[in-house]
Order: sequence, then C-alpha cells, then structure tokens
Amino acid sequence: MPARETEIIETIRRRVRVRSRELRVGIGDDCAVLRPKRGEELVITTDLSLEGTHFRREWHPARSVGHRCLTRGLSDIAAMGALPVAAFLSLALPTDLPQQWVDEFLDGFLAVADRYDFPLAGGDISQSRQDVIADIIVIGAVPRGKAVLRSKAKPGDVIYVTGALGASAATLIKLQKQRVPLLPFANPRLKRRTTQTREDRHFFPEPRVEVGEFLRRKELGHAMIDLSDGLSTDLGHICDESRVGAVINSNLIPVSAGADLELALHGGEDYELLFATSPRAKVPVEIGGVPVTEIGWTTRERGVFITDLRSKPQRLEPRGWEHFRK
Amino acid sequence: MPARETEIIETIRRRVRVRSRELRVGIGDDCAVLRPKRGEELVITTDLSLEGTHFRREWHPARSVGHRCLTRGLSDIAAMGALPVAAFLSLALPTDLPQQWVDEFLDGFLAVADRYDFPLAGGDISQSRQDVIADIIVIGAVPRGKAVLRSKAKPGDVIYVTGALGASAATLIKLQKQRVPLLPFANPRLKRRTTQTREDRHFFPEPRVEVGEFLRRKELGHAMIDLSDGLSTDLGHICDESRVGAVINSNLIPVSAGADLELALHGGEDYELLFATSPRAKVPVEIGGVPVTEIGWTTRERGVFITDLRSKPQRLEPRGWEHFRK
Repeated sequence: MPARETEIIETIRRRVRVRSRELRVGIGDDCAVLRPKRGEELVITTDLSLEGTHFRREWHPARSVGHRCLTRGLSDIAAMGALPVAAFLSLALPTDLPQQWVDEFLDGFLAVADRYDFPLAGGDISQSRQDVIADIIVIGAVPRGKAVLRSKAKPGDVIYVTGALGASAATLIKLQKQRVPLLPFANPRLKRRTTQTREDRHFFPEPRVEVGEFLRRKELGHAMIDLSDGLSTDLGHICDESRVGAVINSNLIPVSAGADLELALHGGEDYELLFATSPRAKVPVEIGGVPVTEIGWTTRERGVFITDLRSKPQRLEPRGWEHFRK
Repeated sequence: MPARETEIIETIRRRVRVRSRELRVGIGDDCAVLRPKRGEELVITTDLSLEGTHFRREWHPARSVGHRCLTRGLSDIAAMGALPVAAFLSLALPTDLPQQWVDEFLDGFLAVADRYDFPLAGGDISQSRQDVIADIIVIGAVPRGKAVLRSKAKPGDVIYVTGALGASAATLIKLQKQRVPLLPFANPRLKRRTTQTREDRHFFPEPRVEVGEFLRRKELGHAMIDLSDGLSTDLGHICDESRVGAVINSNLIPVSAGADLELALHGGEDYELLFATSPRAKVPVEIGGVPVTEIGWTTRERGVFITDLRSKPQRLEPRGWEHFRK
C-alpha cells in the first residue's frame, strides 16, 4: 500500500523547490500562485499517462513511467518554442501498489524537472480502483505573440524533423513479442546526451526543449508540432490547422536503427519535433547535437502525400495513434 | 463505444469559445496560450474525479459527474479569492461507454463553465481500461499579491464558514444504503440559486466563487480554504500552514437539514468556504444570498479543539477524507 496521502504530499514537498522566480506559492495551498514575467505569455498542456494504455507495470520500470509522464508534457512545451516554468501532477494509485514504486516514479519524474530546472508546483493524489493514473500539466513561458503554433505554415514551406523516427515503436513491438526481458540500462539522471539507444528512446525519451526554444528564438519555424502520435498523423494536424497540404520524400525520412520506414511514418512516442518554415530560412543541419533533416514541403492543395521521387506521389493516410478508432 | 478521439475533440471545439480576452489560443494546438492581464497573477489547481473513488456511474448521472468535476476545481479557485479564466480537462473513457454518457458529462461540465463565463481551453482524451477518469485543471486570476492563502491566519482571528455543512455526506450515506433510487431533480442549467436541496448539494454543488471574490476584494479573509475533505481536516490544514491552533463552538456549526453535527464536522464535498479573519473585520451575515456564520477563533497554542462552552474543549481529530488512510 502507498503511504498515507498527507505523507506522500509531505515527501514530495520536501523534495521539490517551493518557489522560483515565477512561482510565488507552490505545494500546500488550494492553488499554486504563478506570476508570469513581464512581456511573456504562458503556454499550458495536459497529458494523461494511464496504465494499460500508455504503459504497463510489467514492461516499464516506475522510473521510466515517471520520466515518460513528464516528458509527454515537456514535448508539447518544446513544440511551442517555450521554456517550462512549472509542472502539476495528478496521480492516482491502487491500494496494492508498494510505496517503493511511488518513490521510483518520483525519482524518474523529478530528475527530468531538475534537468530543465523548474518546480513541481502542485497537483492531486488519490486512490484508484486498479490502475496507476497520472495526468501531467506543464506550464511554459514564451515572449508575447511568439509561440510557434500549428496553424501558421504557408504553402511552399520546407518541412523538417529532428532526430530519427520509429525507435520507440520498434521497442514497443519487442515488448509485445516479449521474447527477451527488455530493461532499459540508461542512467535516468539524464546528462546532456543527444544520442540514445533505441531502448533509451522508448524508456527515457528526451524532449527537444532546447531545439524548440532555439527555433523559436531564431524565428526558424512557421508552424511546429511534437511527434507523439506518429509522423503521418501529426503532419496531418499541422496541415489541417494551417489549411495546407504536404508532400514528403520517403528517401529523406530519418529512420532509427532497428526501425523501418513504416514505423518511422506511423509509430508514435518519438517526441521529436516536426516543423515547417520558409525556404529562405537558414536551418542548421544540427541543433545542440540533434540532427535536423529536411523531409518535404507544403502545398496549396490539401492532402498529405509521400513520394520516392520516381513514382507518382501516394496519399499518406494518418495511421498514427488515435483513441477509439473503429 | 465513445466516438473517435478526433470526433470528440471536434465536438467539444464546436461547443466552446476558442478565445477570450486572456486566451489567445485554445483547443487545437500543442498547448493553449494564455496572456494574463497586467497586474494580475494566476492561480492554478488540479483535481481528479475517478469512478469508484469520487463517483459511481450507477449513482451519479453523467451530467452530475461533469458538474462536480469542474466544481472541484472552481472551489479551489474560490478559496484563493480568484476568478476563473480557463479550464483544461483530461478525460479517459472505457471503450464500452456510450457516447451519450460523454455528451451528458459535457452538458454538465460546460453549463458550469458558461455560468462562470470562462472557456475550456484544452486537455487530453484517452481510452482507459475500465473506469471513467477525469482530471480538471482550472486557472484563475487575482490582482498581484492578493491571493488569499491558507498560511496567513493570525492567533485571535475569528473563524467563519459559508452555507451549511454535511448535506453532501448525508446524501452519500443514503446512496450507500440504496433503499430508494436517489436521483437529482435539479435543473443542471444553474441559475443564481443559493438555496439547494440536500440532494442538489451533492449532485450539483455550487462553488462559492462570488463569495470568495467578495471576501478577497473587501480584504475580509486572512486565510481561506474550501471544504472538500471535511471541516475537521480542512481547518487542520489552515492551522498547520498558519502555525496557529483553533477552537470551534459546536453550537454554532451550521448543520444542513438532514445532516448531523458528525457529518457537518467530518463529511466532505460541501464545497463551502472556511476562512479566518481579524475580529475587527466587518463580515456580513450573508454574501450574495449565502449565509456566513462565525464558528470559532484561532489560538496561539497549536491543535484544533471543539467546545459547547459548557464542558472542557475536546481535541477535534481530523476525520475528514484522506486517501490511503491505514
């Protein structure tokens, strides 16, 4: 059984900073109090991490679940070109869960918060009937009017992607086959590493916060999204919101070692960034050690297509993750 | 089965305002973008509503679950003396749930948001294995440095409570006994009613947003909390954070019709406000039709006590709700 609610809250409170420049009041009141810096606006995201849907206790160590939980939120902050200022965690635990699981979850979670230097400012603790349930809320800050939206791509933009794709989905398939026990060996106290093994990228993905902030600061992105559902689905979101189409070149997609083009196109949870920008923008081939690859262009005609430049472009159906797909 | 994820999001998006004065970007991007007004700071709360823990589908109509979900968050905003500016909803649904349940949940949820005039600005939709899971995030605004905290009560303050206590717990006991089917008849399109039947107060509680904002504006509260876990527990929170003790007069506790002193002291989910203020403060006996009752005073000596003024004060143990209590 987990520790009593008040004990868990006190444990967390002792482990986190109570204040920061923006955070006037943290854990311990009805609400946290946040004072944004002058000239900045806030970006806010929430993401569920549910046992049985987003992770399995038999597959994912608690430390990985905590790491992935916060990364899901940070990746959305990165996709706005913002920097995180505070996180909130709503956590529900079944009564048969050992407190050690909770402690290791928090180890993984707080290591990520420490690396990006922002406080856990509040949340909620509850008991659940069966599953571990976590909802992460991250608040980021960005100069006024400068957030990079999904909706500002223009026809004729060049489409770029960071890192390599398909690694997380490849590991998930290995887990589903369960031939070998597959445990991550990465040190969860993340260093500024940019190359991760395929297993690392599934269990301890690094959100591309620095890359997103760089692109925003240098005004190199018209529109941006993070790759959580899969390239085909997430590129569709940018196109829908921007009312453009896209063509991507299958030869240019950066496929992770161990993955294939199919997984790179439709596998989810890569937590890389996808962005569209002017053909005149000087986009570096690498940002902070993370490769940035040109993969296609946007078009006035709607629809997302893929081509190898030899045969006719084929329509690329959004076959990434969607809940309640029939 | 619920509708597809993208359809649910589109349905919600059509039903809510996409922008407000503060909300620059709402549903449809990686994050919402919020621009606080000059001179204001933000207060943020999150609260889980879990099937089997906070509600049961066989007891609570979907409309009530949606109403209660948002009210849990709004009540925390009220307790800071703030006004709501945006909400976020993370919602997980089992695949066997009919879409009608989702629609009615949203009816209840959005009726409350409309009444307090703020947009649903984002969130997350997921599938769950078994239970309906909702996490509400509400962001409020308050003039800089004016949020009413739990930690600023002073020895010798007078303690007040709004409304009457114990109604929600009394209804819960009736539900547990299940002698009669107990369905709420209240019109969920809330009007500015301040008197509710006991059943209403359980199924469709009204958060005390106007009262909290009035107290903050008139500087009538040193410290404030909302009564979600129960008076004995929540008064303990104010005392712990303010490093004071308290004595309450059992004769003065406003007990709801159908409840008793025990339920008024320890029953949860009343969503009334409890506050401590200077004995020189001119606190009205009624604010916007909601009664405000003096129930005791704070002391330099720690510990919470109860007395009927005839016998010796007894220690009041915090017997409100706590998760994972052994």
